[in-house]
Amino acid sequence: MEESFVPFGGIKNDIKGRLKCYKQDWTSGLSAGFRILAPTTYIFFASAIPVISFGEQLERDTDGVLTAVQTLASTALCGIIHSIIGGQPLLILGVAEPTVIMYRFMFDFAKNRPDLGSQLFLAWTGWVCVWTAILLFLLAILGACSIINRFTRLAGELFGLLIAMLFMQQAIKGLVEEFHIPERENPKSVEFQPSWRFANGMFAMVLSFGLLFTALRSRKARSWRYACGSLRGFVADYGVPLMVLVWTAVSYIPAGTIPKGIPRRLFSPNPWSPGAYENWTVVKDMLKVPVLYIIGAFVPATMIAVLYYFDHSVASQLAQQKEFNLRKPPSFHYDLLLLGFLVPVPFFLCFSKCTSVFTLMFMCRWQTILCGLIGIPPANGVIPQSPMHTKSLATLKHQLLRNGLVTTARQFIHKNASLGQVYERMQEAYQQMQTPLVYQEPSARGLKELKESTIQMASNMENINAPVDVSVFDIEKEINDLLPIEVKEQRLSNLLQATMVGGCVAAMPLIKKIPTSVLWGYFAFMAIESLPGNQFWERMLLLFTAPSRRYKVLEEYHATFVETVPFKTIAMFTIFQTIYLFVCFGITWVPVAGVLFPLMIMLLVPVRQYVLPKFFKGAHLQDLDAAEYEESPDAPFNLITEGELVRTASFADDGEILDGMITRSRGEIRHMCSPKVTSSSGTTPSKEFKSIQSPRFSEKVYSPRISQLRGELSPGNAGRGPFSPRANEKPSNLGKG
Amino acid sequence: MEESFVPFGGIKNDIKGRLKCYKQDWTSGLSAGFRILAPTTYIFFASAIPVISFGEQLERDTDGVLTAVQTLASTALCGIIHSIIGGQPLLILGVAEPTVIMYRFMFDFAKNRPDLGSQLFLAWTGWVCVWTAILLFLLAILGACSIINRFTRLAGELFGLLIAMLFMQQAIKGLVEEFHIPERENPKSVEFQPSWRFANGMFAMVLSFGLLFTALRSRKARSWRYACGSLRGFVADYGVPLMVLVWTAVSYIPAGTIPKGIPRRLFSPNPWSPGAYENWTVVKDMLKVPVLYIIGAFVPATMIAVLYYFDHSVASQLAQQKEFNLRKPPSFHYDLLLLGFLVPVPFFLCFSKCTSVFTLMFMCRWQTILCGLIGIPPANGVIPQSPMHTKSLATLKHQLLRNGLVTTARQFIHKNASLGQVYERMQEAYQQMQTPLVYQEPSARGLKELKESTIQMASNMENINAPVDVSVFDIEKEINDLLPIEVKEQRLSNLLQATMVGGCVAAMPLIKKIPTSVLWGYFAFMAIESLPGNQFWERMLLLFTAPSRRYKVLEEYHATFVETVPFKTIAMFTIFQTIYLFVCFGITWVPVAGVLFPLMIMLLVPVRQYVLPKFFKGAHLQDLDAAEYEESPDAPFNLITEGELVRTASFADDGEILDGMITRSRGEIRHMCSPKVTSSSGTTPSKEFKSIQSPRFSEKVYSPRISQLRGELSPGNAGRGPFSPRANEKPSNLGKG
Repeated sequence: MEESFVPFGGIKNDIKGRLKCYKQDWTSGLSAGFRILAPTTYIFFASAIPVISFGEQLERDTDGVLTAVQTLASTALCGIIHSIIGGQPLLILGVAEPTVIMYRFMFDFAKNRPDLGSQLFLAWTGWVCVWTAILLFLLAILGACSIINRFTRLAGELFGLLIAMLFMQQAIKGLVEEFHIPERENPKSVEFQPSWRFANGMFAMVLSFGLLFTALRSRKARSWRYACGSLRGFVADYGVPLMVLVWTAVSYIPAGTIPKGIPRRLFSPNPWSPGAYENWTVVKDMLKVPVLYIIGAFVPATMIAVLYYFDHSVASQLAQQKEFNLRKPPSFHYDLLLLGFLVPVPFFLCFSKCTSVFTLMFMCRWQTILCGLIGIPPANGVIPQSPMHTKSLATLKHQLLRNGLVTTARQFIHKNASLGQVYERMQEAYQQMQTPLVYQEPSARGLKELKESTIQMASNMENINAPVDVSVFDIEKEINDLLPIEVKEQRLSNLLQATMVGGCVAAMPLIKKIPTSVLWGYFAFMAIESLPGNQFWERMLLLFTAPSRRYKVLEEYHATFVETVPFKTIAMFTIFQTIYLFVCFGITWVPVAGVLFPLMIMLLVPVRQYVLPKFFKGAHLQDLDAAEYEESPDAPFNLITEGELVRTASFADDGEILDGMITRSRGEIRHMCSPKVTSSSGTTPSKEFKSIQSPRFSEKVYSPRISQLRGELSPGNAGRGPFSPRANEKPSNLGKG
Repeated sequence: MEESFVPFGGIKNDIKGRLKCYKQDWTSGLSAGFRILAPTTYIFFASAIPVISFGEQLERDTDGVLTAVQTLASTALCGIIHSIIGGQPLLILGVAEPTVIMYRFMFDFAKNRPDLGSQLFLAWTGWVCVWTAILLFLLAILGACSIINRFTRLAGELFGLLIAMLFMQQAIKGLVEEFHIPERENPKSVEFQPSWRFANGMFAMVLSFGLLFTALRSRKARSWRYACGSLRGFVADYGVPLMVLVWTAVSYIPAGTIPKGIPRRLFSPNPWSPGAYENWTVVKDMLKVPVLYIIGAFVPATMIAVLYYFDHSVASQLAQQKEFNLRKPPSFHYDLLLLGFLVPVPFFLCFSKCTSVFTLMFMCRWQTILCGLIGIPPANGVIPQSPMHTKSLATLKHQLLRNGLVTTARQFIHKNASLGQVYERMQEAYQQMQTPLVYQEPSARGLKELKESTIQMASNMENINAPVDVSVFDIEKEINDLLPIEVKEQRLSNLLQATMVGGCVAAMPLIKKIPTSVLWGYFAFMAIESLPGNQFWERMLLLFTAPSRRYKVLEEYHATFVETVPFKTIAMFTIFQTIYLFVCFGITWVPVAGVLFPLMIMLLVPVRQYVLPKFFKGAHLQDLDAAEYEESPDAPFNLITEGELVRTASFADDGEILDGMITRSRGEIRHMCSPKVTSSSGTTPSKEFKSIQSPRFSEKVYSPRISQLRGELSPGNAGRGPFSPRANEKPSNLGKG
């Protein structure tokens, strides 16, 4: 993206681009039929469970002013609006951890002021939201998203790790609190006797560790050996919500013998119970807020604006990584503008009550619900759900394409067609199934690949004209291997999942049956799940790896810097980043000034651009933290980008690799590589690779890796044999070099 | 071993063989210096913790008649005697799970008889022991151990899995009991109130699952990436006892806030507390046992004799597997005879009281202790401790040899010697360090290998006469790769560990601090640890493996049958074995007849010999369950024995491979292969391999495996490169074929 700061320029471009494909966004979603439910439910669970957890956390942090009902309502409302009129429909909106933290800071500030207190807290946050909205409008209009390529891995991964630390902190804090008497409860109840309190704490340990371990296990189900493929896929996709159900059920096993309050469960008013709206109709209190605080609200608003600008853009960026080969245009500016509207959306709806007859009619029936929306915390683009969404849609697209091609191929094989003929037909079918290319020039990279591999395949079979021998030729496998990664880009799945999240508000009595300890386990799970794929984390691990074992890192799917940057430089860079991380984490502990933590994250952008190049060599910095704005120095040894590797590798078991690539991680910018390589992705990787003459690193130690890559990439061998090495499996043939 | 049934023939042979090396058994142990303490402490913990667990189990099963003090005393006494006058000093003696089960059956039988009751229970078991001893004498004298080669994998692995099931059953039972009031306690104590009982149960869950997970993790420490090699080795060797300590410490964390009885801890009288010997001086009660019961004691005695005959011999067999390249002779017959003496050893000591003046003098001072020994349950050879012992001694020997050779090599490299000269000196040093070969002919296989590899090495380096370049030539690594597996065969480690187990009796007040729940976790740990390496278990897993994932088994270190036997046959064989296993398990549940379960195990020997060959093809049976007594049918495709593979692979990180080979499993006969291959181990494996002309299985599917093996075994490539594929790592270069 070029950096253009013409006012409204970015927004206009975005709207123009997305309008072209707006109709197709809906027709494409509808054409997928019931299959669209798979990614929908997947993302619904991934979205709803954290939002419920955050609701529980907010409820504790704000003494019950805000609960899971509000977070769910906000996520649903913003999600529905964004999926209908938003720019990038792959982006998932939700109430995120940083929002919760900011609300905690604001509550801690407000509750100790006599002229504000928890009574006027929501009204005051209303003003914060108004200011935030104004700032976001300005950012969007002025084209701030043009500099999104300055958000390098450095800042993004540090942010990811900070969130993981906050999650883990909350999990531990929550678990410790299970042994104590909660503030709002009557300490004389039977369940708060020392014996029952201890029992409750121990039960909480069992439930949360149980959830943590089983959830971590179930995520790896795709690589299990046992059970059939569809069951493995089901467990991998739905294992985590399933485990929440299982452990909730387990929490009811000793129900007969223990008092009712053990284990402790989610606390939230039902949305329809009398008095539940007491603290919802805050708009009328907004003018009661002293003027000084209205102006002061600008400070947290700045922080939230900075945070949302960063978080929303990075989430959107990750949902549109290069590896996904998206065909529709991005929409950073317009989405940020829309976010500006969404932050205080309830206020606007409410103000319109006085002016519009239509709204008045509407209000008559829906007044409680719409008023109920006042005071909910705002939602923004969330990580890792957004890249997870794209990934699940890639799996869907793959299934659709494969089924179409397999049907075509089978038809022609039955007619005793030759291999050449079959591939010709498959090419035609593939072309028909293509999304109309409204954005990109019809480069049709996937198609080209299909053609190339046909030729390779045919020359391997040595007889392109003989009828296909079905016993040798495994069509499904072949097609799996051939298909490039493509994404079913549409709006339906996002709309449906947001609606389902809204449905959770109605299901509150059921959701309240989840023990809090299960949620603490879920927090720990999310923290741990976000680590793999984060290069910052992997570099931290590398520092602790015994020197004699470092070769094992090379044997795995690893980033370029491991081979090209000296260990000492990696260590220095990582130590700097770690110290920075702990400073950020420390700031969140500072009572009121903690609200400034988003500034620290944004500060990394200029630090990366102006300070770091003074301490590190350009080439090293390039490999450790590629920035598109920097000139790539002469890179004599460009390893193939990992994205390319993934694309050439087979698509076995519907997304096992994509899993390894995306969902095991928080997505992140893992596959970003030096620009020179990514820009030259038109040439086939193997060719590029063969031209290497002077590898920078010691031939003695690393040569096996080269020969292995060479083997993998030589024509006729690229992930095609029945035992082709998968990109995410450990290659251990390094002794052969 | 030839089958000879000449009375006393086997015993004479054994004594003659072991006497020759008796002196060397001691001098060799002493010469190792303080290093002998590593295997000693390793085996001490592996031996003591289960014995304490069994003591706890016995204490529950016999209403406190027998406790951990007795099991420890028995293990120590029998261990000391065996290590001094026993035949095979690699064999570790201890009170084992089957003994505990037999005692439970006997107690259940005795306590309900009015003329026996728990009063005369120990006296009656005294008679059982006398009968058992007589039967064992007869078996030993008549040369029953000659048929030890009929104990095939089928029976051994079924026995192993049965024990694992019993362990797991006990772990679950024990954990469930933590929620209930134990029988012998006062139900009105504060810790048995419903709330504290529930708290105790939940705490027990935390402790036992905590131990289980951390222990399982720590066993894999050698393959960790982090921390230095010595720490990894320490954690892998001592992690499990360390975890018992850690979780015992954890159990004291909430000590201030909970009653004293939570969590429940080991219950046992201190050996010196008054009244502790009440039930120990049972020998005087032996004549009070009604005659009918004295005769009836023959029935359980037969079972125990069968059990001990089987268990003792198999444990000894596993401690002397072919892969260990032992140099000293086995001693099956003599050890069985000695076991016959050990079973009722306290009685003999006591009877002698009346006859010998020496013993009388002895008695005056030691009366209580010796009398205290009366009534303890007997110890026999234990799995997996015995093979673990051999393995730890192999690691020790390897360290000693390596250090010696590295010193020699360094000396000559400093003198600018050529590679050829260095190897010559190393050969000399190696020869000097050899154990005098009292048993085998001086074939010196290890030496030969060293020579061969020198030549290979030299031809690889292409210049045998140039001075060694230290920067390229990693001496330690080279020597690690070259050294064959050898074992430090001596008696000292066994004696020391048995003495240390005896010391535990004195440390009873400390041992009583271990929570029972930690022991339940340890039971589950032992059950799980015994599974890998058990081919029966692996075949059961194979049945549940999705057909599309079966190729993954081939990619790993797998047994021959996976490639040579049709899946249907494997399935049938495994289902038969599984049904048999469940029948055996079911029998242990039958109140009194359960005592017959050892018969079911022994029955497998004739079933294997006479019944199974009628249902399965000889070649298949040969691969599934190799029996030395069967003629090997024409085996057109003999894969290299796995043992050979291990031997050629490098010995990286002191025993990581041996770990994979032995301790992760219950040892078992994993590396036994078709006799044709093992007998022809004189020829180099690669040569044998290259002669394959007509592989039996589909070339299409399995060819990569062949080409991979070919690659591994071709000269100059056999586990020698810096990244040589380890035998226990997953080779995934199968796409190259």
